[in-house]
Amino acid sequence: MASKSFIEVQSESHFPLENLPYGVFKPEPDSEPRPGVAIGDYVLDLSAIASAGLFDGPILKNSDCFNQHNLNKFLGMGRPAWKEARATIQKLLSSSEPALRDNASLRQKSLLPMDKVQMLLPIAIGDYTDFFSSMHHAKNCGTIFRGTENPILPNWFHLPIAYHGRASSIVISGTDIVRPRGQGRPTGNAPPYFGPSLKLDFELEMAAVVGPGNELGKSINVNKAADHIFGLVLMNDWSARDIQAWEYVPLGPFLGKSFGTTISPWIVTLDALEPFVCDAPKQNPQPLPYLAEKISKNYDISLEIWIKPAGEEHSCVVTRSNFKHLYWTLTQQLAHHTINGCNLRPGDLLGTGTISGPDPESYGCLLELTWNGQKPLSLGGTTRTFLEDGDEVIFTGCCKGNGYNVGFGTCKGKILPSPQ
Amino acid sequence: MASKSFIEVQSESHFPLENLPYGVFKPEPDSEPRPGVAIGDYVLDLSAIASAGLFDGPILKNSDCFNQHNLNKFLGMGRPAWKEARATIQKLLSSSEPALRDNASLRQKSLLPMDKVQMLLPIAIGDYTDFFSSMHHAKNCGTIFRGTENPILPNWFHLPIAYHGRASSIVISGTDIVRPRGQGRPTGNAPPYFGPSLKLDFELEMAAVVGPGNELGKSINVNKAADHIFGLVLMNDWSARDIQAWEYVPLGPFLGKSFGTTISPWIVTLDALEPFVCDAPKQNPQPLPYLAEKISKNYDISLEIWIKPAGEEHSCVVTRSNFKHLYWTLTQQLAHHTINGCNLRPGDLLGTGTISGPDPESYGCLLELTWNGQKPLSLGGTTRTFLEDGDEVIFTGCCKGNGYNVGFGTCKGKILPSPQ
Repeated sequence: MASKSFIEVQSESHFPLENLPYGVFKPEPDSEPRPGVAIGDYVLDLSAIASAGLFDGPILKNSDCFNQHNLNKFLGMGRPAWKEARATIQKLLSSSEPALRDNASLRQKSLLPMDKVQMLLPIAIGDYTDFFSSMHHAKNCGTIFRGTENPILPNWFHLPIAYHGRASSIVISGTDIVRPRGQGRPTGNAPPYFGPSLKLDFELEMAAVVGPGNELGKSINVNKAADHIFGLVLMNDWSARDIQAWEYVPLGPFLGKSFGTTISPWIVTLDALEPFVCDAPKQNPQPLPYLAEKISKNYDISLEIWIKPAGEEHSCVVTRSNFKHLYWTLTQQLAHHTINGCNLRPGDLLGTGTISGPDPESYGCLLELTWNGQKPLSLGGTTRTFLEDGDEVIFTGCCKGNGYNVGFGTCKGKILPSPQ
Repeated sequence: MASKSFIEVQSESHFPLENLPYGVFKPEPDSEPRPGVAIGDYVLDLSAIASAGLFDGPILKNSDCFNQHNLNKFLGMGRPAWKEARATIQKLLSSSEPALRDNASLRQKSLLPMDKVQMLLPIAIGDYTDFFSSMHHAKNCGTIFRGTENPILPNWFHLPIAYHGRASSIVISGTDIVRPRGQGRPTGNAPPYFGPSLKLDFELEMAAVVGPGNELGKSINVNKAADHIFGLVLMNDWSARDIQAWEYVPLGPFLGKSFGTTISPWIVTLDALEPFVCDAPKQNPQPLPYLAEKISKNYDISLEIWIKPAGEEHSCVVTRSNFKHLYWTLTQQLAHHTINGCNLRPGDLLGTGTISGPDPESYGCLLELTWNGQKPLSLGGTTRTFLEDGDEVIFTGCCKGNGYNVGFGTCKGKILPSPQ
């Protein structure tokens, strides 16, 4: 794209004209939630732009999709509407277009400093599914829990393993997380442990936001699955490893996960990510025909995890990973999810699972980084096996373009102590 | 209750004045959905009663909770509102009260023959959780999959095991179920099977409908948990055993369940079930303090499963079970669900898990009834190991009072073939 915005965007910003991620915000604590896009250090209020009649394309002209409390209606309209909105917003914000640039009153109404607004969950999440698509993560967890022989179970290479997650406890970045209480696995013949989790962890994930869904009983073809994905967010799938270890057989994780899941406020669209497409890893064995796609895409998205202990001034980086390490692609995940006829709905969230890379510096959770607490992690002047009260965990994600970024901002949360 | 209704209710009806279960219906295909209660062979339209100003108690007088497309708002108002509504409706329908009895125009507007209306999902289900609370079911499944030594895993007696289910594919009784396609467990070194499920099953369950929820990070005390439960429905947790067997390690059931879950249209309130309370089974080992309740209640609800094969005129009963066989109580399930701070919301659904009794005639699914297909079940002139296309499965549930029933009606669904 040759065009520049009339709004100044620093070169290190995550939100240049090439990005334009979608979120939902309140300008004031008592105003109505509304959709916006990020541009530099500003949020463009899409309800104000719509009210001014500037969405003048054939699909959006008469739509109320930006006069909503969440993005679900817009997501359900599909890629033609998304393309039209992106083209309109890029034009409006470009330096060569006077409609907004030269309208001081509309600028004041619609362009708000990002640090003055309150970001909210951008979507009403009907169902949240969490996959398990990093081979390195699967291998490390399998080795820790079952030993070095066959750490990855036989089904893993044939299908993108997943479980249903809890939708109600998904919160927006910046929300504090209360350390969960629960039962931990007993040792020997002792009764199970009960109390605040002693093995509180984060999981570095991203999540796909579903656009148009499918009817119950009908599947989505893997080669058309991308049309059902609006974009991606960062996600922290907080996990209590001691609770999880005791409860998870035979029906999977439950209370070890459902106390909170944090997502970043800005949904970066697949359109904005397109320049950062890379090949997905070669799959062996060859997947079944319903999972075999003509083009198998990943995205080159650098991911980092930072921890800021209570009272410390600075945070420490503990992991550098990348979305491209995922073995199963987003489109395979979505096609698999619907092969049995399960219906997806706009706003559903599909987590990737923990994104661990091949090297110890790229592992996506403390379980792997500290090898289940056996190797404490150095953190500036202190160490960690699992999270302590007051720790703040910060994820960032960014695609590096030629002179610009397409970034996700941050996804963060701080641990509060358990209730007495 | 001494009072009778001015509406004739047959003695075998599930819906006398003592019951008054809540549902949502459309009088005509193009009318707006609205709440109603069942009385004999009629549905009382609560939106019409509210419009007529007959909800005149202090809580409901100025509420629009019955001018909604679902019951969520009413559920969130809690037990005082439910008690007031029940008292008002029982009075209105009683033979001694003229307000509705003698108002022909209002009777015509508000009392509709049940066989003429369309029943809809009564609630918007934010999250659906499925427990695993029948010891007999846990033991049978464990024996089938892992052998007779230690069929029940050690955690089972310490906590009500559960997993997150899929909310989008929950459908109302009478909706056809499309046989899911998917991967089945390979035998030996063969690649996994792919195609229509060969082991399609039902699961006889009931589900609690959550009333007022809790804030994220706060737990609900087990002795106050009943105030968060509005009532119960019948539920068929359709299961594809071959898909489930291959996918479920290590994260639990996913596509083997998410293709469809059927609930009955009428929510029977805990108030109506109170005369049928019975003691819950004695628990050994003693549960941890957060699960130890002062009074441990079950309900004496007779449950039956009927199967009607395609082209047959009659259905055959295949199981007689009872809700009272559950080991973990509804209140323990709810308290456990929130002990980690997980937030429940009005309209959430908590399935009990398959309700199997101690005897083979009381097993709640074909997996147990046919011992994983090894012992075909006789069905009139034919036999079944798992479900065939065209089979209709019908659940009924009923409490037998002295001269009256408090019943759940039916929960049914028919199997359609997989898409090509």
